[in-house]
Amino acid sequence: MADKFKAVIDEPELLKESINALSTLLTEAVFKVTKSGLELRAMDAANVAMADMKLLASAFRTFEVEKDIEIALNLSDLTSILKRSKGTDSVTLELKDNQLLVEMKGGTKRSFNLPLLDIKQDQKIPSLDFPVSIKIKTEAIEDGISDAEIVGDAVILEADPDSFVMRAEGNNRKAEVRIEKGNDLLIELKAKDHVKSIFPLDYLKKFIKAAKLCKEATLYLGNEYPMKIDFRVLDKIQLSFILAPRIESE
Amino acid sequence: MADKFKAVIDEPELLKESINALSTLLTEAVFKVTKSGLELRAMDAANVAMADMKLLASAFRTFEVEKDIEIALNLSDLTSILKRSKGTDSVTLELKDNQLLVEMKGGTKRSFNLPLLDIKQDQKIPSLDFPVSIKIKTEAIEDGISDAEIVGDAVILEADPDSFVMRAEGNNRKAEVRIEKGNDLLIELKAKDHVKSIFPLDYLKKFIKAAKLCKEATLYLGNEYPMKIDFRVLDKIQLSFILAPRIESE
Amino acid sequence: MADKFKAVIDEPELLKESINALSTLLTEAVFKVTKSGLELRAMDAANVAMADMKLLASAFRTFEVEKDIEIALNLSDLTSILKRSKGTDSVTLELKDNQLLVEMKGGTKRSFNLPLLDIKQDQKIPSLDFPVSIKIKTEAIEDGISDAEIVGDAVILEADPDSFVMRAEGNNRKAEVRIEKGNDLLIELKAKDHVKSIFPLDYLKKFIKAAKLCKEATLYLGNEYPMKIDFRVLDKIQLSFILAPRIESE
Repeated sequence: MADKFKAVIDEPELLKESINALSTLLTEAVFKVTKSGLELRAMDAANVAMADMKLLASAFRTFEVEKDIEIALNLSDLTSILKRSKGTDSVTLELKDNQLLVEMKGGTKRSFNLPLLDIKQDQKIPSLDFPVSIKIKTEAIEDGISDAEIVGDAVILEADPDSFVMRAEGNNRKAEVRIEKGNDLLIELKAKDHVKSIFPLDYLKKFIKAAKLCKEATLYLGNEYPMKIDFRVLDKIQLSFILAPRIESE
Repeated sequence: MADKFKAVIDEPELLKESINALSTLLTEAVFKVTKSGLELRAMDAANVAMADMKLLASAFRTFEVEKDIEIALNLSDLTSILKRSKGTDSVTLELKDNQLLVEMKGGTKRSFNLPLLDIKQDQKIPSLDFPVSIKIKTEAIEDGISDAEIVGDAVILEADPDSFVMRAEGNNRKAEVRIEKGNDLLIELKAKDHVKSIFPLDYLKKFIKAAKLCKEATLYLGNEYPMKIDFRVLDKIQLSFILAPRIESE
Repeated sequence: MADKFKAVIDEPELLKESINALSTLLTEAVFKVTKSGLELRAMDAANVAMADMKLLASAFRTFEVEKDIEIALNLSDLTSILKRSKGTDSVTLELKDNQLLVEMKGGTKRSFNLPLLDIKQDQKIPSLDFPVSIKIKTEAIEDGISDAEIVGDAVILEADPDSFVMRAEGNNRKAEVRIEKGNDLLIELKAKDHVKSIFPLDYLKKFIKAAKLCKEATLYLGNEYPMKIDFRVLDKIQLSFILAPRIESE
């Protein structure tokens, strides 16, 4: 007997924007479906970044699955389909005849079928210990990325107990955003020491697409260490990206 | 003595949007000017689609023509010019010195001259008998086209006494919009039997540009038969497109 | 001892939009900094157009310079940086360590460093005597340029005591904007005789970017003679462009 899965979501943006951010990183993906929701953990093709999404069952109006299953899909196909949803649609995901059926109910009833792929994935999340965490408005990160792009293709993320800095240097040029404790954009800064790591901008630009989900994110940093960025909507979605640092040539 | 023609329109959008839709299909066109208005009937270069426009004299503030004449123009030139009109302009079309003079009066007086072409056309509209007619909001057709584009380059139009369906299939994918009788978007559905034909999406995308003229259109369908779509603004404009079906390989 | 210069402006648009217009014409530029403000005079690489900008010290909240100095910069770099400023930022320009430091203070403190170039420039403004001056809303010029583009790559500017005309001709096509005295868009027209000159459209399109600074400009014309266009914001900025006429082949 075929696996059963059917879920209805009234906030299609949660699905659309998270899958859209993921699709810039991954071409195919294996979703784990359990009673607690839809999960995805995957490494990008270049082995530089990792995504970890949990779209919680509580984000859905109904979420029915009999036993834990895996659904492998082409993410760019799924994104194209989800982009056709309207904010007021309710969107149904359903397994049917070895396909994923995506139904959008609004003024009309529209449906899409997508074939399941025959791939397996079992990505472990590395155990990381971050000495610094920074809860910050996503607009500040977006500004820092756009500023840094003027100067180069990498950004230095730096923090100490009093401030968070995004900086780019190169060709005798420099761009820097410095956000001190007390700034409205900086909600919480936990740092005991000074840390500094450098990251490729193109990946950060992909991650920050998830800012469409929520206006705040939490950055986790270390010294010459990977970074993690967390986007969360309470009881609905957790979307994290982990990125390896670029080795500095300074 | 030269032919005389002068017409002034206070709703330049009628002219701009209809010519714009036509210009995606036809590079040159012969307009017939009679006391009843401006007419254009033409087949596209691929002999797949036909356009039939009547911009009625009653759409114009003044419409003066002494005897029936023909005006042949490059449609992409005419479209470029009409795009320069503003919604509040009154636009004058006038034959002068073997040119078409297009004058736009708003805050300023702006004028454009366009050479007449030396071509003839006498397109007959084929006699077609459609068993099904569907009066529908254009937004539903636009959605169906955009949905279908995700899956392929053709769309199946299907109707029966209770519903109208736009569907695309291919590569193990499917997209479908189903609109049942009673849906607000479906104003009128006249069908005795089930009909189904398949059409190339690129043409439908061109036709639907005319949705800028009016929020409703009427679709005429048959079984493995051409389609016709009608855009009408009462006493002002009638714009129809006829499209040959694609032969199904199913 | 190094030269000192520090200036703070609360209307970054003045700086951003003027430099943006200049950067379409010049890749590098030498600014003269004196107690009266920031000045730039330069000829474009093709020797066809000249720019003359004075951003007055009174446009700045503070403007400190010890002695007259020159600052040579890459204008496209400077434009990229200034585009990152927000309308509500206050922007500081400061010479530091042989670099220009650009600081933007708004919700955050963001800074950019730009290297000084080692070039000299001493452009003299030619002595020109224009028989005609036309104070006009910039939207009328923008319309005339866009209309003319449909027809060709040059525009004829023509004036007499009663009207100002922008016209393009070519390939049996014509576009013309005629603005008569008394039209609200034409604030002042001073002309004793009829004058007419032809100019390349691509340059006018660059100049008119400065319309973001102010809604009015003054055109200076002669007969088969260069043109000048002036954009002014009282006590803040004067930005002029001079353009050589195209020799007519009529």
